[in-house]
Amino acid sequence: MAAPLRIGIAGYGNLGKGVAAAVGQNPDMALQAIFTRRDPATLDVPERVAPVVAWSQLLEHKDQIDVLILCGGSKEDLPQQGPELAAQFTTVDSFDTHARIPEYFAAVDDAARAAGTTPIISVGWDPGMFSLNRMFAEALLPQGQTYSFWGKGLSQGHSDAVRRVPGVAAGVQYTIPADDAIDAVRRAEQPELSTRDKHRRECYVVLAEGADAAEVEQAIVTMPHYFADYSTTVHFISAAELSRDHAAMPHGGFVIRSGTTGGGHSQVVEYRLELGSNPEFTASVLVAYARAAARLNARGVVGAQTVLEVPPVLLSPKSPEQLRAELL
Amino acid sequence: MAAPLRIGIAGYGNLGKGVAAAVGQNPDMALQAIFTRRDPATLDVPERVAPVVAWSQLLEHKDQIDVLILCGGSKEDLPQQGPELAAQFTTVDSFDTHARIPEYFAAVDDAARAAGTTPIISVGWDPGMFSLNRMFAEALLPQGQTYSFWGKGLSQGHSDAVRRVPGVAAGVQYTIPADDAIDAVRRAEQPELSTRDKHRRECYVVLAEGADAAEVEQAIVTMPHYFADYSTTVHFISAAELSRDHAAMPHGGFVIRSGTTGGGHSQVVEYRLELGSNPEFTASVLVAYARAAARLNARGVVGAQTVLEVPPVLLSPKSPEQLRAELL
Repeated sequence: MAAPLRIGIAGYGNLGKGVAAAVGQNPDMALQAIFTRRDPATLDVPERVAPVVAWSQLLEHKDQIDVLILCGGSKEDLPQQGPELAAQFTTVDSFDTHARIPEYFAAVDDAARAAGTTPIISVGWDPGMFSLNRMFAEALLPQGQTYSFWGKGLSQGHSDAVRRVPGVAAGVQYTIPADDAIDAVRRAEQPELSTRDKHRRECYVVLAEGADAAEVEQAIVTMPHYFADYSTTVHFISAAELSRDHAAMPHGGFVIRSGTTGGGHSQVVEYRLELGSNPEFTASVLVAYARAAARLNARGVVGAQTVLEVPPVLLSPKSPEQLRAELL
Repeated sequence: MAAPLRIGIAGYGNLGKGVAAAVGQNPDMALQAIFTRRDPATLDVPERVAPVVAWSQLLEHKDQIDVLILCGGSKEDLPQQGPELAAQFTTVDSFDTHARIPEYFAAVDDAARAAGTTPIISVGWDPGMFSLNRMFAEALLPQGQTYSFWGKGLSQGHSDAVRRVPGVAAGVQYTIPADDAIDAVRRAEQPELSTRDKHRRECYVVLAEGADAAEVEQAIVTMPHYFADYSTTVHFISAAELSRDHAAMPHGGFVIRSGTTGGGHSQVVEYRLELGSNPEFTASVLVAYARAAARLNARGVVGAQTVLEVPPVLLSPKSPEQLRAELL
């Protein structure tokens, strides 16, 4: 067997923890180090997982890392870290601010071309596997309509909005795809649907002491931008129920394209994810693309990549011969 | 706009007709010629679609064809045509005898490397899009189980078997995925399932004059290999109903992988096709991969390819920049 692929993790939140767990499921990889901007001594990482190293020492480990997986956030961390670290390492990240992908790609690409590295940006499920499926479906069915649905899933932004309402002690919000919209799309009716038509919202709220449930509910369901335009349900629960039933981070969704082929027949293509843990699945995608990044770099391919450019075969630990025999 | 990609069709059955229709949906392509082993004058092709040319003149058209799409059968035609034509053209085919793919790949690859062509073999939905989804799902979820279900779809082999039963004047057979098996897989139960457990069979039969329905039904449901091991239903219908309700060639199915990520959470990935016309969808996939084959050849990539090797971005008429901005 070849030497294992040496992985570094930059940032150790939920996503970084997921990456550490995912590397453990891939025998051709070894977790080399976890880099953190916090005091390494404060991180709760079992010693056998990997050494925890201060961010300031990242460059000293350059020769021991084949691929550095960036686990920071898209808002504050990656716009700076992505280009900076691509100038030193072949990286994989989950940059997910869709509107800013072109400028982020350009910045990472410039750094990578100068350095001879092969970063893959915006990896995960959306952007990521959903993007790939939107592209495949559109290329296969040029005449048609593509729909992306998200959920059932915990939305961080909407949960924050609920928690800012006076009288709310704690709470979470789930985005849920609307069944009637999904059914219409699956029946190939090609309806016109806004994000609002496609989703409803469900809130689980713990009331602050003395707060009025009716007032809180009214404040939530009428909140502009976040809830007013959606069908929103508010459930009041106890703090114990919240921590017992709503601690996981499930997510998922659908990409469905319905189209018509040249002879007039209707065709429906659907990709669906039902994720018990959003960060763990995203981490698993990052780790598979780390394998591809190292292989592309070894082939001499240099510059920023996305899931759209990477040959699928590079994700698998199996050889092309084995894949053709077993899976094709 | 660049000059259109010049497509040739080799073989004009249901699949070849589908390819002609699919090329018409892609403005960056032009159908250059249809090659047939029959007398060209006997083919019913509207003149504006493309000239029909005798097979014996294929090589004379070599300089007018960028990609030749092979629409022959996997049993009799492709084993010989695939390597022979890859020695002259960049080709795309739908070779679907799974067990013989490695030897077919090797034969086409040898011819292509000697000639400098870039054939893509075994393109369609299974092998093809289903293979890709089996590979992606396995790479993303190394610990798990993958299931392929086929149907509801017309099976040519099983329809032939029904028609050979004494007392049957005409008939068709549909393969239908078993709902309880799909539900168990979607619930991430990772059941052990044989092909037999996953599918049931439904036959629509027109009785020959004087034939006994009970005898015919018994002969079908007890037929070894084809039906005896399956849950099989036989419906008797009139010849008029057969031609009215069962002339289309629908098909489809599912690839579902359920797995567990490193932190112990359950994850389900599903890809589903619901095809109004099997040959038209297969043709649409062939045409998108013809675009990729031409681009790979222009890049200097030589030798046989499969859907597993081809970078997804090459399937789309859009530029990588546009795809990153719109779809990623």
